[in-house]
Amino acid sequence: MCVAFSYERACHLHNNKCSYQSLNMEEENTVVVETEDVTVSVAPASPAPQEASSTQEEEEEEDRDEIFLSRAIEEAYKAVESGDGRPFGAVVVRNGEVVVSCHNMVLKHTDITAHAELIAIREACKKLDQINLSDCEIYASCEPCPMCFSAITLSRIKRLVYGANAEAAVAIGFNPFIGGTLKGADFHEKPQLEIKKVDGKGEEVFEKTKGKFQMS
Amino acid sequence: MCVAFSYERACHLHNNKCSYQSLNMEEENTVVVETEDVTVSVAPASPAPQEASSTQEEEEEEDRDEIFLSRAIEEAYKAVESGDGRPFGAVVVRNGEVVVSCHNMVLKHTDITAHAELIAIREACKKLDQINLSDCEIYASCEPCPMCFSAITLSRIKRLVYGANAEAAVAIGFNPFIGGTLKGADFHEKPQLEIKKVDGKGEEVFEKTKGKFQMS
Repeated sequence: MCVAFSYERACHLHNNKCSYQSLNMEEENTVVVETEDVTVSVAPASPAPQEASSTQEEEEEEDRDEIFLSRAIEEAYKAVESGDGRPFGAVVVRNGEVVVSCHNMVLKHTDITAHAELIAIREACKKLDQINLSDCEIYASCEPCPMCFSAITLSRIKRLVYGANAEAAVAIGFNPFIGGTLKGADFHEKPQLEIKKVDGKGEEVFEKTKGKFQMS
Repeated sequence: MCVAFSYERACHLHNNKCSYQSLNMEEENTVVVETEDVTVSVAPASPAPQEASSTQEEEEEEDRDEIFLSRAIEEAYKAVESGDGRPFGAVVVRNGEVVVSCHNMVLKHTDITAHAELIAIREACKKLDQINLSDCEIYASCEPCPMCFSAITLSRIKRLVYGANAEAAVAIGFNPFIGGTLKGADFHEKPQLEIKKVDGKGEEVFEKTKGKFQMS
């Protein structure tokens, strides 16, 4: 069977455009920002123009993150429903467009490296015909394991937004090795990458799929 | 182009048998053993039987490691000569037989994740039809980067033998991120994996290929 074919089956390539104002990524050290699901900021009655603009940008970023993270979470459910693999999904985005949308294919491909993020990075490289993804962001249903986090770093992706903490996956039986990547000092010091944790539906994936797939 | 086809082109599948006495892997914490290239131990004139056996086993292990590591290093040179990628090679071995022998394909596949060890693990999983490679060893021309080391850990490969220190690759311009994996505390505490560093030809790969490939 042709691997390219089966990857394409799992890796839906889209050009859906999400209208939003381009963000000015700050060049600062990596921070893990844990935010509640879509916090709506209320602007004061007579805001200074700069403050209003900042609030609008933040809201647009929240909306955008909600859309793409939901897509990654949908992929996580698809992985289990299809029997392709474990409940993990990932989406690579460039300029507000989905480049690739993928899920875990470990079982389908009998390949322990076929994690959602790794496949997404591989397919994004091919689709964009470049090995440097510094103009891309990645949305992952769960905190990436050390392998996937390293792949993200190697690819120079500029921003990571994720749902569940890895501990939620470890709690239902996944290899404890996958947890704690972002807590390691080595991985914190990546100035080119902004990391954002979004609470909410990411953790639900594991609760809802528990028992529907084999750990083997 | 079919990915499976092109991976097979880079990933020579062999059944070469190397006769050696099976080793009893000790269940102990991971240690990085830095040894000189093929140290020959001289047995005493009248050794106790157990000592003689131990020396013989050590010599056989050295010979075996020399053969498979040389193969991984050959792959590293092939990567550059063929234009497929960077100077890194990896070989997965089970019961003294080469399962797969691969090299870096980052350029050929336009895939930043197509490192030698990652491809070797993927192809070994497929060839052996299992995602648990706990009965396998991996030989790498260079100390694996964090992505590949994590893939090795996820695959549960029981033993890693490598040539060059990652610093040798960093010294000729590779991403500093690839260095220092094995120095990190997170990666040291893997009781199922024995790690061995072999000095010598691994470092030479970078000296000899420097300038023959683009870093891009």
